[in-house]
Amino acid sequence: MRGMIVGRFQPFHKGHLSAVKYMLSEVDDLIVIIAASQQSHQKDNPFTAGERYDMIRHSLVDELKDITRVIIVPANDVKDNGLWVAHITRLVPKFDVVYTNNPLTEYLFKQAGKEVINTPFYERKEYSANHIRELMISGKKNWRQLIPKAVAKIIDEIDGVTRIQTVSSSDKS
Amino acid sequence: MRGMIVGRFQPFHKGHLSAVKYMLSEVDDLIVIIAASQQSHQKDNPFTAGERYDMIRHSLVDELKDITRVIIVPANDVKDNGLWVAHITRLVPKFDVVYTNNPLTEYLFKQAGKEVINTPFYERKEYSANHIRELMISGKKNWRQLIPKAVAKIIDEIDGVTRIQTVSSSDKS
Amino acid sequence: MRGMIVGRFQPFHKGHLSAVKYMLSEVDDLIVIIAASQQSHQKDNPFTAGERYDMIRHSLVDELKDITRVIIVPANDVKDNGLWVAHITRLVPKFDVVYTNNPLTEYLFKQAGKEVINTPFYERKEYSANHIRELMISGKKNWRQLIPKAVAKIIDEIDGVTRIQTVSSSDKS
Amino acid sequence: MRGMIVGRFQPFHKGHLSAVKYMLSEVDDLIVIIAASQQSHQKDNPFTAGERYDMIRHSLVDELKDITRVIIVPANDVKDNGLWVAHITRLVPKFDVVYTNNPLTEYLFKQAGKEVINTPFYERKEYSANHIRELMISGKKNWRQLIPKAVAKIIDEIDGVTRIQTVSSSDKS
Amino acid sequence: MRGMIVGRFQPFHKGHLSAVKYMLSEVDDLIVIIAASQQSHQKDNPFTAGERYDMIRHSLVDELKDITRVIIVPANDVKDNGLWVAHITRLVPKFDVVYTNNPLTEYLFKQAGKEVINTPFYERKEYSANHIRELMISGKKNWRQLIPKAVAKIIDEIDGVTRIQTVSSSDKS
Amino acid sequence: MRGMIVGRFQPFHKGHLSAVKYMLSEVDDLIVIIAASQQSHQKDNPFTAGERYDMIRHSLVDELKDITRVIIVPANDVKDNGLWVAHITRLVPKFDVVYTNNPLTEYLFKQAGKEVINTPFYERKEYSANHIRELMISGKKNWRQLIPKAVAKIIDEIDGVTRIQTVSSSDKS
Repeated sequence: MRGMIVGRFQPFHKGHLSAVKYMLSEVDDLIVIIAASQQSHQKDNPFTAGERYDMIRHSLVDELKDITRVIIVPANDVKDNGLWVAHITRLVPKFDVVYTNNPLTEYLFKQAGKEVINTPFYERKEYSANHIRELMISGKKNWRQLIPKAVAKIIDEIDGVTRIQTVSSSDKS
Repeated sequence: MRGMIVGRFQPFHKGHLSAVKYMLSEVDDLIVIIAASQQSHQKDNPFTAGERYDMIRHSLVDELKDITRVIIVPANDVKDNGLWVAHITRLVPKFDVVYTNNPLTEYLFKQAGKEVINTPFYERKEYSANHIRELMISGKKNWRQLIPKAVAKIIDEIDGVTRIQTVSSSDKS
Repeated sequence: MRGMIVGRFQPFHKGHLSAVKYMLSEVDDLIVIIAASQQSHQKDNPFTAGERYDMIRHSLVDELKDITRVIIVPANDVKDNGLWVAHITRLVPKFDVVYTNNPLTEYLFKQAGKEVINTPFYERKEYSANHIRELMISGKKNWRQLIPKAVAKIIDEIDGVTRIQTVSSSDKS
Repeated sequence: MRGMIVGRFQPFHKGHLSAVKYMLSEVDDLIVIIAASQQSHQKDNPFTAGERYDMIRHSLVDELKDITRVIIVPANDVKDNGLWVAHITRLVPKFDVVYTNNPLTEYLFKQAGKEVINTPFYERKEYSANHIRELMISGKKNWRQLIPKAVAKIIDEIDGVTRIQTVSSSDKS
Repeated sequence: MRGMIVGRFQPFHKGHLSAVKYMLSEVDDLIVIIAASQQSHQKDNPFTAGERYDMIRHSLVDELKDITRVIIVPANDVKDNGLWVAHITRLVPKFDVVYTNNPLTEYLFKQAGKEVINTPFYERKEYSANHIRELMISGKKNWRQLIPKAVAKIIDEIDGVTRIQTVSSSDKS
Repeated sequence: MRGMIVGRFQPFHKGHLSAVKYMLSEVDDLIVIIAASQQSHQKDNPFTAGERYDMIRHSLVDELKDITRVIIVPANDVKDNGLWVAHITRLVPKFDVVYTNNPLTEYLFKQAGKEVINTPFYERKEYSANHIRELMISGKKNWRQLIPKAVAKIIDEIDGVTRIQTVSSSDKS
């Protein structure tokens, strides 16, 4: 059985990681869609699809060594919700079940006849990408403990803190 | 060191497979870009990005078991050659060297300061996706021996021969 | 003489209906443009163009039986206001007069040399699509009395209340 | 029961007209999709969507007087065949059966679970829009007898012969 | 040496003018990019690219007579910040240095290896296009003293005050 | 009076140059539109909009010294001929007369109420950008005498011959 999860992963954090590990215990293969692949260098979308791919990939290799069962796919947004399921369906390999807590995602995939499973296991508040970005913008250090080491390393390599601070100051002015 | 190869893989054939295996002997990781990801159900692009992802994935798993070192990324076309390198660069993880025999691809990546290596090792004529599609359209059987077993199995599952024959007859009329 | 009216009709309500009937008393034919045809499954745009087409069509058939004089045309948005009049003009049959209360629509069509008539006859406050959507989201029942019966029937068939509640909860989270 | 037919109608001719009349004898309502609505002033697509809407509309009014059962919808192309059925489905009211002789259209709608009926009743050769355009370009007069009177009147009003000759000479040079 | 400055110039004001004159004292040629060229008739983007081109052009001709050293280029937006530098680079003649006070513009061009110079010489508060638009919307007259005479003349010719008031009232309603 | 001329200028040649000089003798200002600004690195469109801008600019500066009367504007294509005049009109400053020998351009601008003048003065055959590109591709030298010196210098600087040969060999393979 093949599962699918969709996220922007701005950035990929420990909540995402434990969700992915849990899903991998339930399915044979897991498709991880990097949504909004065309967005980067924005306050809410600081990292490129390529950077996010590496964040996910390195975090999972650190945990699992062999990530053959994980199928990572960057997907650009379509503005048109009525086309979204068709867009995703032809972009990724076949899947049997969708993991999501987003009501619209659940609604659209159920309408298209897909099985949908809610994922109630990781604490939203602490492990929130939005919260992590806010910490980075405000210059606090404790975002590091909320993300896998591999992700912190990538953010350091690209000087992601400077980037997100720059981007968010431009958005304001 | 990380290499990158770009192709439409319509379909992924034995020439592609031996090229990928050769490159994996030279680099640490290999990015395989599925170009024209938005195209399908056309005479020259019969298969969806998702189907092509599975063709590549299953062929490599059959050969290698662990495909952790292979990074598959579907990429939609941009019409504008002047933006193409920038488009690919932000969509995929960082890479050091590009494998290509296409003069324009070589030209554009060299202009952007990337190392480019030609890949003179697989016979163009026999292992040509165009030739394989022509065989499928004309109803001959010998396309099967030109592609990995996993690819033939996927084409059978989706009844790809009927699809490509349908598509190409619509193009003509 | 041919008139034209533009709206998103999310949903088509009794105010729209009386406006259309009034205009049909003034012109030979009336073009009804379903604007933002590519939008659906959003808090402000819950219904597809096809659903809105049926809402308008069934409401008018219930009233008029023969709707030969009504020309319904879904039109996708163009972001670029400077192209909007040209976009509409080539998409719909020729028209002589535009009915609108929107200052920008009036401005753009007047600039293009079209006659524009304001439509001061239906009460904005009560018969407002925005108000109707808010009632549906908050779970109240009285939205039904603000729309034609045919529209309520379509909304029930597609379980539109669940859809708009789902969509608006996703927008918040 | 509701049927659907798709065409570019460049221009709408007598073959189209008899097909539509035949379908109206079989279904309750008929959706007529004007494909490639964004194309005009090209050799193969000389007429705007609005002009084509009027051609269809006036031809049917001349025949039927009341065209309440006919639902005309202009639809822009999507390049991506994998999204086409989803694009049409949300743009038009619900339908039960698709009339088409195009193998790809048949394939795509069957894959989406729709019933498809072939329409073997009007002679392709004589009543071909391509043939009619060639006659107009070459300056011959006999295109008039291949199209309904209402269509010829519209083409005269917009001086369509000059337009198609102009467009096709620009394509060549 | 060739410099470049990017702005939306909605409208071109005296602050812009003195900045351009200062830069022309430092470089051989100056590229002036009219950003968001596809936007007009919006509250924040009232003027078309063509109108803004004329505003810049006439203001500089009034000052300099010969504007051979000024290279004006309208550029449409790309939503995707990761492509923006590549988009600008192929659209305009080669340049050596970018003048900007926008942190994101500075960040992106520096990443691409361009020299960036901050322009700390014109008072942001008074000579702000946003402030000028607000004055025009509220019906005050003193916006005239903040813009070059040539710009005021163009705004009068196109009745720009009516336009921006119309547009901003439509945005509100 | 302001004139306008549209071309792709791939590359700008002596025929273009004499046409521009002739027009400048007839009008106060001349708008030169660089069409298909988004295309480059293709067999028929080898040069970027920025390179073409410099070709035109340097050729005219060499001839005229002061090019204040010349208004160069890169314009991206719109696929949709029905929107083309509206697209150009809002992108460039106002103009009174269009110089063109292209029947479709003439048709569209005349429909929009613009005066159109044919430009029968430069020999099409010899000074043809297509012919010049063919000479460059085939490795002959005599393309140099067909273009202004400034253009040849730019083509040498960017090694344009290698580029067009590369691009055209990729198109073939």
